[in-house]
Amino acid sequence: MSERFALQCPMPAGTEGLIELAHGAGGLLTQRLIDEVFRPAFGTATDFTHDGAVLEITGRRLAFTTDSYVVQPLFFPGGDIGSLAVNGTVNDLAMCGAEPQYLSAGFILEEGLPLDDLRRVVRSMQLAAAAAGVRLVTGDTKVVERGKGDGLFINTAGIGRLLPGLEPAPQQVRAGDAVLLSGDVGRHGIAVMSMREGLNFESAIESDSAPLAATVQRLAAAGIPLHCLRDPTRGGLATALAEIAAAGRVDLRLYEQRIAVSEPVRGACEVLGLDPLYVANEGRLVAFVPADAAEQALEILGSGPGGEYAAIIGRVERGEGRAVLESDLGASRVLDLLSGDQLPRIC
Amino acid sequence: MSERFALQCPMPAGTEGLIELAHGAGGLLTQRLIDEVFRPAFGTATDFTHDGAVLEITGRRLAFTTDSYVVQPLFFPGGDIGSLAVNGTVNDLAMCGAEPQYLSAGFILEEGLPLDDLRRVVRSMQLAAAAAGVRLVTGDTKVVERGKGDGLFINTAGIGRLLPGLEPAPQQVRAGDAVLLSGDVGRHGIAVMSMREGLNFESAIESDSAPLAATVQRLAAAGIPLHCLRDPTRGGLATALAEIAAAGRVDLRLYEQRIAVSEPVRGACEVLGLDPLYVANEGRLVAFVPADAAEQALEILGSGPGGEYAAIIGRVERGEGRAVLESDLGASRVLDLLSGDQLPRIC
Repeated sequence: MSERFALQCPMPAGTEGLIELAHGAGGLLTQRLIDEVFRPAFGTATDFTHDGAVLEITGRRLAFTTDSYVVQPLFFPGGDIGSLAVNGTVNDLAMCGAEPQYLSAGFILEEGLPLDDLRRVVRSMQLAAAAAGVRLVTGDTKVVERGKGDGLFINTAGIGRLLPGLEPAPQQVRAGDAVLLSGDVGRHGIAVMSMREGLNFESAIESDSAPLAATVQRLAAAGIPLHCLRDPTRGGLATALAEIAAAGRVDLRLYEQRIAVSEPVRGACEVLGLDPLYVANEGRLVAFVPADAAEQALEILGSGPGGEYAAIIGRVERGEGRAVLESDLGASRVLDLLSGDQLPRIC
Repeated sequence: MSERFALQCPMPAGTEGLIELAHGAGGLLTQRLIDEVFRPAFGTATDFTHDGAVLEITGRRLAFTTDSYVVQPLFFPGGDIGSLAVNGTVNDLAMCGAEPQYLSAGFILEEGLPLDDLRRVVRSMQLAAAAAGVRLVTGDTKVVERGKGDGLFINTAGIGRLLPGLEPAPQQVRAGDAVLLSGDVGRHGIAVMSMREGLNFESAIESDSAPLAATVQRLAAAGIPLHCLRDPTRGGLATALAEIAAAGRVDLRLYEQRIAVSEPVRGACEVLGLDPLYVANEGRLVAFVPADAAEQALEILGSGPGGEYAAIIGRVERGEGRAVLESDLGASRVLDLLSGDQLPRIC
């Protein structure tokens, strides 16, 4: 379970200079693509790694974010590409410390997509938007020829009002902070992967896809200083923690036994040869708060999605930017960014 | 040239209930898809036909818009998918009466895309953003397997500040208004189509892709009441005029001889069997203004992209929502929405 298999990714011969699946995995190659292609053109102010950008318009501060969704299959246990496209962007805004308000939706349809599938996805988006309290206000539809797409891709962009006094970021993380996780991990990736591979596990595994904005608003309303928030999607919990440690220039000390992984997810990961800490989640968050606010924050997380498994999973220490996981047996390993792409097209 | 060939689109056997290319053409089938699938779920307030939505956030009014770009080939005379993705969204904001400020960019890459192509596109976006005075502030990258995409799709969403006193819309159009067109039509569609089909016309035809925000700002600064603005992209000038007439419940009387079509575009349209009035533009706008402001508006349009061919092309009359084109020979025809898809994947 704790082998670093995900870090092995020899580049196939002849693919140098070409886009690979791993460039979209949210790990090391995504990071390189951003550093080598996007940053030189768009500047370091452009947010490609984080959940969104904070910007000023007519004197007010807003959060603005975008995500494209290419998950395959379109429908999976616990959700579909429509609810995912709403919850994912709602969560990115929430992680910026914003109250999500408005979404756009851009559809790229492949010729031959059944209209009934589109209706089902659109209906799912409607329900997810209502549940998250956001409004879909503008949209666009394009169609590509058969064989030039894959059924349906959706982009959603979102705008939200920044909650007063909040601007969570890795740079705000301080030694002594507690690291909280809002629920068990690995459900989304395994739910999608099981469906795609036609695997039948004894217990059905449902995606954790859910909106996290209400939870963040409750944390903020309680006056808890939210130093950093992150939803561990592509690349999983391990990649999120490794990124925050590096960007915040702090060390994280994390305890594996406090990170909940359900038995069905653990079993499926063993069958599939995956590390649940690198598997995508779509309804979980990591919060960094001062130690003296940790218990109150934990109580609030307990009432959110997956809250029965919410936990304080570690603490922040002075250091050089490493996330260190102590295993149940007392061994410790440094968490790295996901390398390669263990689960392509998971969101 | 003036046959209504574009209106013939028998549905191929066996495609009922499936997405067709014409659903993405911006014409009749796009309209039906919106009316039958998107509106029932998202409500009539959601903007799928227009250029963008006007919304309120923290007490300020903003424009918000999204578009996905699937143009093929990625590079064409006068532009590429990158500059198009910036200019297109900038123009949608401008058509809402807004000053474009911030863009997001979502990339869907196909495995095997040369990194150099991506670099070239990203560099082009950078230059287009600088030229239009907007900032790319947030982005996202996904990768799909070979054969599940088509090189590169880009979604851009945009936010802009509404210019004071402006909220152009078809419902603001009044009998007596003048209809202005900012330049010659048909360049973008023909430039892309020529490239795709490997056609070599005697004179190179370049896309008109250009930002229109500065032109709109000059019109607004001159105090010209902008009743309605529209950039005639997919479906061309004819579809834009037909939509505005129908939505504004007015008749439009238009004069074909005042609508400039360059000789190379006219010749290419004849070869390809296309009507230039239904061919996409990416740097032209239609403006509806009071008759007594028309000459001043025309002068301002003269200094914008394609301005040497800017013209007052008609006037608004009381009526039932028809756009009527009087030909050079005095015959008249009603302009309908584009039916079918004469030029797939043009933007």
